[in-house]
Amino acid sequence: MNYDVKEWHKLSLAKIDSLMDSLLTIKTPCETLVESMRYSSLNGGKRIRPLLTLSASVLSHANVEDALLIGSTIELIHCFSLIHDDLPIMDNDSMRRGKPTNHIIYGDAVALLTGDALHAICFEILSSNKISVTAEKKIKIINLIANAIGVHGMVCGQTIDWLNTGKKIPLHELQQMHTLKTGALIRASILSGYLAGDGFHDSQYQRMDDISQKIGLLFQVVDDIIDATEDSHTLGKTANKDAEQNKSTYVTLLGLEEAKKSALNLHKNIIEIIKLENNSEYLQYLTDQIYYRNS
Amino acid sequence: MNYDVKEWHKLSLAKIDSLMDSLLTIKTPCETLVESMRYSSLNGGKRIRPLLTLSASVLSHANVEDALLIGSTIELIHCFSLIHDDLPIMDNDSMRRGKPTNHIIYGDAVALLTGDALHAICFEILSSNKISVTAEKKIKIINLIANAIGVHGMVCGQTIDWLNTGKKIPLHELQQMHTLKTGALIRASILSGYLAGDGFHDSQYQRMDDISQKIGLLFQVVDDIIDATEDSHTLGKTANKDAEQNKSTYVTLLGLEEAKKSALNLHKNIIEIIKLENNSEYLQYLTDQIYYRNS
Repeated sequence: MNYDVKEWHKLSLAKIDSLMDSLLTIKTPCETLVESMRYSSLNGGKRIRPLLTLSASVLSHANVEDALLIGSTIELIHCFSLIHDDLPIMDNDSMRRGKPTNHIIYGDAVALLTGDALHAICFEILSSNKISVTAEKKIKIINLIANAIGVHGMVCGQTIDWLNTGKKIPLHELQQMHTLKTGALIRASILSGYLAGDGFHDSQYQRMDDISQKIGLLFQVVDDIIDATEDSHTLGKTANKDAEQNKSTYVTLLGLEEAKKSALNLHKNIIEIIKLENNSEYLQYLTDQIYYRNS
Repeated sequence: MNYDVKEWHKLSLAKIDSLMDSLLTIKTPCETLVESMRYSSLNGGKRIRPLLTLSASVLSHANVEDALLIGSTIELIHCFSLIHDDLPIMDNDSMRRGKPTNHIIYGDAVALLTGDALHAICFEILSSNKISVTAEKKIKIINLIANAIGVHGMVCGQTIDWLNTGKKIPLHELQQMHTLKTGALIRASILSGYLAGDGFHDSQYQRMDDISQKIGLLFQVVDDIIDATEDSHTLGKTANKDAEQNKSTYVTLLGLEEAKKSALNLHKNIIEIIKLENNSEYLQYLTDQIYYRNS
């Protein structure tokens, strides 16, 4: 692995964290709300989504500051979804990124509202003058991201997941659920970074779309494997939660060995395709990171 | 009162309901989610927000279809906020618009996710090709609405409200809380309709901004009065909830008579200012409706 790529990762992480801190430095009459938004966002996440946005923006020569802003708003959406997921009325999780979850600290009602506020601020930022792309491009990016969140994306997947807790579902339904629940926002992370740039053709965009969907799938298969194999300390959240909740996962449906084989093949296939694109070093590196992570 | 204005109200209501029905005719892999979104949106609300958008759009000669779409998305935001508000972890309300609340029918988790899905779909629609205004104008409208929802608007007001339940707060804090909780989205309803049109000056926009904030305040003062004076049957939701929850309201802080006097003066003042604008008949009529309503 190239030193520059690791250095890029480290520098980008620092930039994302500093930008998110500044985006959440907000003056409002309710300090508790801002404190709660910061508590669940500025907490040392892996920032895989904004990193993907940044890495994809390199392929289309987008402005780095724009890509940082777009990626960070997607990370805020991710944080909102985690707060709502962790609530006692859903997964009832008390630990996240090694710290008590939001509702443990601020109570269920403020946690609910904090998620809503993080959701809305994403669109405040994306429609602001902070981002320098044309209005036409902003609209495309907003549409892509909004689409990935709601009834055609993440929330739809979460609902299917919730309604099927305790039930065994067939593999194709599991895959559809994850394409929505995790895949849609990962796809939007990559494509929005790519869209922020210029000079690509529809066929290139289609290729990026295909790659981004495969990366989303890889992310989820690996997630299921580490949930089944790593302990809570390594994960920073409750381990083996899927089995406890009797959820269908790639591991429970395929078995651990088959799930690992599936991740291996997927990873290999993605790298082969990405390699054909110019300036794809960072995206290749992140795909490796997604595959080799243990938390 | 002019027959045409009443006719406009009736026709507009029908158009809004029909458009919302069509916006929520969605094909996704999770029928329950769509059903739940429809349950809490297509339920005979008064549609005061989209009506305000429509009435304001007349002043700037905006396209009616655009104003209908923008207003309807704001109504979806309103519906999302009601679902989250009604959850047991917040107001724990079991009746809304004369029907069981969303979580009573679909459970707390699906209700939570339904609110999130309605939130996201607003930005999907606003950034879609369905709306014919320029991309620059779309961005302005999205920014206005996103700003009205989150940490600078509705959700901030809801959090302040929640954190002060059971406490007596001074009148200026109550007013600030309502400016955020209810006022911000009403302001956005009016200004987004106005923004969809053309040919107005900054000074006109400033006047509309002032009017829209006053209408928001009137709406809340009247809301507090009817909560204290009407029964649950008339309201279609639990009556006298504010007193039960020991919430500060205009009625508990000023007394019923002073609150009524305050609403009377505010209504008079708003009508005097609106009358100076051309084509403001519908907005005048809606202000009357807000003032004279009993639910």
